[in-house]
Formats: sequence, C-alpha cells, structure tokens
Amino acid sequence: MGTFIRNAWYVAAWSKEVGRQYLTRRILGEPVLMYRKEDGSPVALLDRCPHKLAPLSLGELKGDIVECGYHGLQFDCSGTCVRVPGQPQIPPAAQVKSFPLVERYNAVWIWMGEEALANPDDIVEVERYRMPGWDLIDGQYLHFKSNYLNITDNLVDPAHTTYVHKNTIGNAAGENVTVKVEQGEQHVLAYRWIENAEPIPLAKKMGDFKGLTDRWQYYYLLMPSISYVDFGTVDAGVERNEENKNRGLRSFSYNFLTPETENTTHYFWLHVRNYQTGKPDIDADVTKLMTLTFEEDMAILAAVQQAQEETGVREYVRLGIDNAPARIRKMVDKRIAAEQLAAESNVPITRAELQVAG
Amino acid sequence: MGTFIRNAWYVAAWSKEVGRQYLTRRILGEPVLMYRKEDGSPVALLDRCPHKLAPLSLGELKGDIVECGYHGLQFDCSGTCVRVPGQPQIPPAAQVKSFPLVERYNAVWIWMGEEALANPDDIVEVERYRMPGWDLIDGQYLHFKSNYLNITDNLVDPAHTTYVHKNTIGNAAGENVTVKVEQGEQHVLAYRWIENAEPIPLAKKMGDFKGLTDRWQYYYLLMPSISYVDFGTVDAGVERNEENKNRGLRSFSYNFLTPETENTTHYFWLHVRNYQTGKPDIDADVTKLMTLTFEEDMAILAAVQQAQEETGVREYVRLGIDNAPARIRKMVDKRIAAEQLAAESNVPITRAELQVAG
Amino acid sequence: MGTFIRNAWYVAAWSKEVGRQYLTRRILGEPVLMYRKEDGSPVALLDRCPHKLAPLSLGELKGDIVECGYHGLQFDCSGTCVRVPGQPQIPPAAQVKSFPLVERYNAVWIWMGEEALANPDDIVEVERYRMPGWDLIDGQYLHFKSNYLNITDNLVDPAHTTYVHKNTIGNAAGENVTVKVEQGEQHVLAYRWIENAEPIPLAKKMGDFKGLTDRWQYYYLLMPSISYVDFGTVDAGVERNEENKNRGLRSFSYNFLTPETENTTHYFWLHVRNYQTGKPDIDADVTKLMTLTFEEDMAILAAVQQAQEETGVREYVRLGIDNAPARIRKMVDKRIAAEQLAAESNVPITRAELQVAG
Repeated sequence: MGTFIRNAWYVAAWSKEVGRQYLTRRILGEPVLMYRKEDGSPVALLDRCPHKLAPLSLGELKGDIVECGYHGLQFDCSGTCVRVPGQPQIPPAAQVKSFPLVERYNAVWIWMGEEALANPDDIVEVERYRMPGWDLIDGQYLHFKSNYLNITDNLVDPAHTTYVHKNTIGNAAGENVTVKVEQGEQHVLAYRWIENAEPIPLAKKMGDFKGLTDRWQYYYLLMPSISYVDFGTVDAGVERNEENKNRGLRSFSYNFLTPETENTTHYFWLHVRNYQTGKPDIDADVTKLMTLTFEEDMAILAAVQQAQEETGVREYVRLGIDNAPARIRKMVDKRIAAEQLAAESNVPITRAELQVAG
Repeated sequence: MGTFIRNAWYVAAWSKEVGRQYLTRRILGEPVLMYRKEDGSPVALLDRCPHKLAPLSLGELKGDIVECGYHGLQFDCSGTCVRVPGQPQIPPAAQVKSFPLVERYNAVWIWMGEEALANPDDIVEVERYRMPGWDLIDGQYLHFKSNYLNITDNLVDPAHTTYVHKNTIGNAAGENVTVKVEQGEQHVLAYRWIENAEPIPLAKKMGDFKGLTDRWQYYYLLMPSISYVDFGTVDAGVERNEENKNRGLRSFSYNFLTPETENTTHYFWLHVRNYQTGKPDIDADVTKLMTLTFEEDMAILAAVQQAQEETGVREYVRLGIDNAPARIRKMVDKRIAAEQLAAESNVPITRAELQVAG
Repeated sequence: MGTFIRNAWYVAAWSKEVGRQYLTRRILGEPVLMYRKEDGSPVALLDRCPHKLAPLSLGELKGDIVECGYHGLQFDCSGTCVRVPGQPQIPPAAQVKSFPLVERYNAVWIWMGEEALANPDDIVEVERYRMPGWDLIDGQYLHFKSNYLNITDNLVDPAHTTYVHKNTIGNAAGENVTVKVEQGEQHVLAYRWIENAEPIPLAKKMGDFKGLTDRWQYYYLLMPSISYVDFGTVDAGVERNEENKNRGLRSFSYNFLTPETENTTHYFWLHVRNYQTGKPDIDADVTKLMTLTFEEDMAILAAVQQAQEETGVREYVRLGIDNAPARIRKMVDKRIAAEQLAAESNVPITRAELQVAG
C-alpha cells in the first residue's frame, strides 16, 4: 500500500463546505484546516500549531488570520506566524504548512506536493459541464473505509457491476463480455460493449427502449485517482458514433478520490447526463440510485480492506479483468517511487515527469 | 499462548444454526463460511475469495455453488473454482480451502487440520446421550473473552467452584478438599469427593436429601479442549458404585471449546441428567442455572485474560490445584510442537501421533 | 514521555471514595485496590492475585482480609498471603504488593515507590486550609485524556488563560504581559501581574471593583505534579503586600495530578478562597466555574495529546512562555533518571536526593 502521490490535485472539499467556519479534513494522512478569507478565496493550512501541536481549528478566525486557541499565536494565510503574544521576536520555525488551492467545478482542489509544481491546468477537465442539454448533479460525498487503490481497482473494472450492482446498474447480460484495456501516459481506459441485451433497470426506468439494447461502459482512470465513466445505452444495432450515443441514454460519472488515510478515502462525485433533464425529481432519483450503487461498492470494498489488513495480502489470484487495475497500480507505484527518489535526492520532481509517469 | 492444535475435531456450530442461509464464524483465527447443500449435508469453506479476498458470505448461494459477490467467481463444495465470468480458463490457484465436517450430537464438527487425518471415530463419545431415564439439554452457546486454555484450566479445577460459583454449584464445604489428578494419553482427570457436607443449592432444589451428603466432581479434559464433568450427590456414607451414583442426583456436563482467536473462545455446551426428567420447566431451570454458572466463569476469565495481556504473564505462583491444568497445557504444547515440526518438515503428523500425544 | 516518578506522594482518592466497598483505580499504570479496614484506616494493594492474575477486586473483603474471587487465596493488609484453600503450605511468592497510604486534607495519598522513603512530612502543605475567613471546596475530580506533563506545562503557564479561558478566568488584558519564572529545589514558580486592567469575568461577578484592577497569577508547581495557584485581584495601584492581597479577591487553587497511564491523568482539585464565604450557593457557583475552566483545559490538552501521539513530537517551536514548563520537565526527567539508576544499580535512591532533585 505504501504512501501517496503528493504532486497531484485532489478534491479537498465541495465549495459549499468551505466558508467562514473552519472545515477540517484529513487528506493524505494530514489534518487540513480550510476556511475562506474575507474576500471569499479559500485557504488551507496544516491544522497543527507549530508550538505545542494544538489543532488550530480549536481557535478563532480573526479576519483572515488564524489564531491558535491555546496561546494565541497568529498565522496569516501563507502559514507565517505574525504574532506571539508576550514575545516581540517571532521564531522563524513558527511556520504552518499551507497548501495551494484552486476552486473549480464547485469544488476546492488541493495540492499537497511541491508548491512550485502546482499548475491549475493539470486539473481534470469535466466535459459537458453545464453544457446545454446536459444536467448536472454535484456536491456529493461518501466516505469509504478502504485504501483508495482498492477503489480505483473497482473503477476500471466493469465486470464487478454484474454482481455488486445487480439491483442498480448491472445485469446478467454482462457476465461473459470481455473487457478491453487501453493505456495512455496519464490514464487507463477499460471498456466494453454489451450487445443485444435486456436494458438494465436504470435504462428501463429512464429511457424508452422497445427491445434489446447495446450499452457501453468506458471507465477512465486518470492518475492518481480521478475516475470518470462514460456510460450509455442505445437501441441494439445502431451505428456507434458520438451522435448516436448522444441520442441514447448517456451519462458521465466523475469520481474524485482523495485518500484520507492508508485505509480510508474521501469519495466526491458528480454526474452529468442527457436524459430526463430539467426535472428535480429525476435529479433526486438519480442521486439516490448513484448513492445506492456506490454504497454497494463501499460495503464490498470495506470487507476487502479488512481481509487485506488481516492477511497482509492484496490478492491471491490475478484474473483477466485485473489488467486495467494492475496497470493503474503500476503507474501509481512508479510515480510514488519517482517522488520518493526526488525527496531523497533533494532534486525536485519535474513537471515533465508528472506528465509522463505512465 | 502460541497457536492452536489443528488436527482435532472442534464444534463449529449447532446443527440448527447451519442451513441454506450462510453462517459465518471465526474458528482457530480463520473466517469460516458454513451452509447446507440442497441434500442437507453441511459444507464449510474459508470465507475468503482467492481473487481479491472478498468474504464469500457477501455473495449468493446458488444451489450448492458459492458465488462471490464481487466478480461472480463460483466455487463448488470442495472449494474448487468452477467459473470465472468472462474468462474461459480458470487459474489453478483459484481454490478456496474447504474443511471436513461431521454432524453428530446435533452439532457440526469441523476438522481444521490435515484432511487425510480427519477420522470421525475420534469425535468424543457423549455417554448416556438420549438414553432412557436421562434428559438432554443441548444447543447452548456462550462467547468467552478468554484464551481457550484459561478455560480448560478452569474446567479441570474443582477448587474454583467454592469461590466463583458459591451461589450456584459450590459451597464452603469444598474449600479444603484436595483434588486428585489422573492422566491418560489423551485426557486429564481431576476429581474429588466432598463428604458429609450440606447439600449444595442445586441439590437442595432438585433432590430430596434429608441430611448430609457426599458429592463428587470428576472433571475430564480431552485433548485439546473438550471437557465433560461427571457431577453428583448421594446421601452421606453410601457405597460408591455406579448403581448408587445413578440413584443419586447425577449429571454429565459437556463443554466443547472452539478457539475463535487467541483471546476469545466459542463455548458450546450440552447437559445430560437423571433427575426431574421429562419436565420442560426443570429443563429451563437447569439451563438458566448452568448459564449463570458459566457466566460467572466468563467474568473472572475475561478479567484474567486482560491481566495476562497487560502483563505478558500467565501466572506468578503455581499451586497444588494447578497440577491438572499444567498437565493439560503440557499435552497441548507437545501436540502443537509436533504439528509445527510436521509442518516445517513436510512430513505429515500421523494418526498414531494424534492418539499418543500426552 | 518515558515513565513516572515513583518516589512521591500522589492523591489516590478522596477520603469519601474509600470505604468498605472496594475502590479500584489505575495509578502510574498499575491497578490499585483500595478499601478501609474495620478500624477505618485505608489500605492499598495491587489489584492482581499473584496466582493467576485475577483482579482481587472481583472477590470479597472479609473483615480486613482480601479474598480472591477465583480460588479463595486470602491476603492481609500488607499483601501477605495468609491462606491457600486446600493447601497447607503457602508459597513465599504468593505476595501482593501493598502501598503506603496517608490520609490528609480529606484525601488518601499513596506512595508507589520505595517503601522506606515514604515520609508523610513530604506531603504538600495546603495553606489556609480550614482557616477562619477562608472557605474550602474539595472532593473534586476530573479525568484528563492527556499525559500529566502536558497538564503541568499548562499549570505553570499563565499565558494560556487569555485564550483557553477567555470566558472564565482570562481576558485580553493579559495578552502581552510577560511571565517571570523562579525555581527552587523542588518547585518552579511562574507569575505575573496584569495591571490597570478591566476586571476578569469572575472578579466582576464576585467582587465589587469600581474601576480598573491589578491582578496576580502565581503558579507554583511542586515536584512531580502538584500545582497550586495563588490568584487574586485588587484595585489598580494599591501597594502589593500580603495584607492588601488578603483584602482583595483571593484564592488558592490546588491541583493534585496523579498519572493514570502515559496518556491519561487523574485530576483532583480543591480550592480555598476569601470571598463570598459561608454561602453554599457561591460554593456551587465557584465549583461550576472551576470545573468549566478545567474542562476548557481538558479539551485543548486532549487534542494536544492526540497530536503528540500521532506525530511522535511534543513541540516544534519553543517560546518564552515555555521557560517554566521546560524547567519542570527537566526536573522531572532528572528525577526519573535518578530513580532508574537506583533501580538498575540496586542502590536505593536517598531521601536527600528526593529533596534536592531540581
């Protein structure tokens, strides 16, 4: 399981969660304090006073200044100590680590790595975001009691849907349909078409299919733990092009995984769809269905995590369906090794390395 | 504390607990899944898919076939994988460990060791089971927060009854009566007669003693952790033979201990008695009394276990009453060492060794 | 964090807590059993039978004799085994550790170190205890989820009151007033005067100050973990002598810290004051206010303890206000080292060393 990739943008919170009240959340194992400045821009600091380690979140926010609740040390938004009560000289070590933040897609993205490498251009692009004809559900959060790589395994693994999600987004027609895998420098794609099949429960409910259907599952996993799934259903036999796909029932499901600890993960998700748009009731239905689906994953992955911790083993047998998960893990391992080498040699990792890590 | 003896029959469950719904129970530290085949015979498998370690119990039972709830791998009752969805070749390593089971005395007995050595003849004989004139109580279960050897200590230790069970099966008359010990190849027996004593509370309630009594406690402990206690009361001074004993108030109490973990134990018990037979009310009374008695043991043994874990010490002073417990532990240690030697040398332990381990 | 100073008097309990019912409390990591003999004098024994480690507190008190609830071993008040049922010879190792106790100030003081060094004269003197014109609150107890030295840090640290206790005993006037420190052989004193300041909330409520005030905080910390605070308010500008101080609003707050474990501490406190005396309502108010104040400390110190355990670090930056805490820790470390040396060399620590450890 090792450590985490630090030089990457992770979702730290939904924008709505960050305000003038402190928000605290553990990210990559570290306690992070978030708030908004009086001008509305978000700030993230390590939630730990460098004096006696009291959580800064137990103190007060005074304007843009964070004041420790133990002895009143004050820190600005960069984490620099600007006041020690009763002591004119401020020790240089009285510094709190701050983290770059970028707000995009209603989410606050955090960079836990080398500050110099934090480039907002590297944040994943959410296609069709607020595009006419496509409806958005966002602001969703789940807490997984599992290492994030068990979840990325799952998110490039169409095969599990037949079993884990038989009541929601899978059905028996997919059982024997092999998954194909493609790989880029920063991503892995696992996909398959299930042809001439009964529509899945979701398609029956939301669509208007008279007979059998073809449906696709394209699972993209971007380094280190951003997933999006292009998921759709069309009438069986229609030509496979973007136009026809967009005429079918189609959705893009984005899952932003942020490791909390080695064993737990924050799971932020948003969803873009082209069907039943402009209907709050359907938004609620889809949200409920997606939540149910992810909770099915949560249950099985928590059990897998427990068994892994107990045995110290991750898997005993590798199957064909593990091709994509194995590629992801290899890419992640390679990047972690590069970061560790950089840390040991004191030669910072380069932006080029970040972009060609696969 | 070390490990467990594996080559032995342990009670895994009462028969009534095992059906077409999965039953899961940790035994000798391992998660075990139990169910009945369509023909009614019981099956036990390790509750862990060899693919990604998901508990098989989260999936479905399809006929006699166990299907993993994660990716649909299917296993037969021997634990052999018979299907990997989407993949024609089944990897040979896709094998789940299965455990021999035997059903006897309304209980399902499991063999966690070398399959070749599993011989149902080695299951303990419950004397007077369903014999006319003797009533049976069975199906009883308690969970002890204690290593099983602390419980076997207790079960060859008549001396504790005076103190731990002063409200139920002991009284002050036994305080100074020395315990005698005999040992066979597979068992230890600790026993004593308490003579010319007030009847204990149980005997007063269930019997019809006019004056003082003689009572006996014969505590048998069979390797590794099967206890039975021959317990009875007769009028003081009558000749000690089987006929007179059976005319007195007599019971046989069987306790089948199955280690759950190093620190916890499953405690299955049944009880055979010759008094107040055919009366469901009395059955309920005896069950209540026995349960109360064992709960007295549970409390003290949980406290002992905690103190042992905290100090890393099992006992500071050895007393005369520890003779039988010490013999049991020595027999168990010897057997565990033999099993470990067999495991290391790849020369399986023999049935002869199992039978002469004392 | 290391270990504890053993050769010192700690409060084990309030007198009212110790009676003919067993009281158990963990002290310096060890389980201690306390009770009163029939003549009313208190006894403390290690709560662990030397036979199989059962807690003696699960057994019965018979007269002055402690009887184990497992096998009936009996121990006198010195911890010597006086009976093993069923066995005439008592093994010499059947000995329970006993601890010297002294009853003073309505509290039972325990000595966990070398018995020969236990001298009741070394118990701290509580000045003005039951003196006319001064009211007493005692019998108070709080449980801190923090190592005791984080609490002693806090108890020689007037600076934290401005922040942690801004709603009770501190206010902003103290923010920049430097703390002075003095040190003796057995104590550290941190103190300051806050001059020409608004009265604090407590003084406003309890006193009758027309204008600004001078107030003092004298924090004494006696080895290893006895704190008392001389705390008072007078009209601004009056001459600083005992007579004037006693005419002001004055209190002495005693905090007797007894380490429970490395991470938790028993916090016994009593309070002596010269204002609003003879009024049970005010006693209740003061008790409530003090409890509230200490609970403010509890919250921040529990968070500090957690951060220390997580990081393995106690502090990153040392400030001027840490002068007194650092002296305390140095004195404690030195004493612990002396005790360890004595233990290793088998040359007992001397009373002289105990008294000049600073």
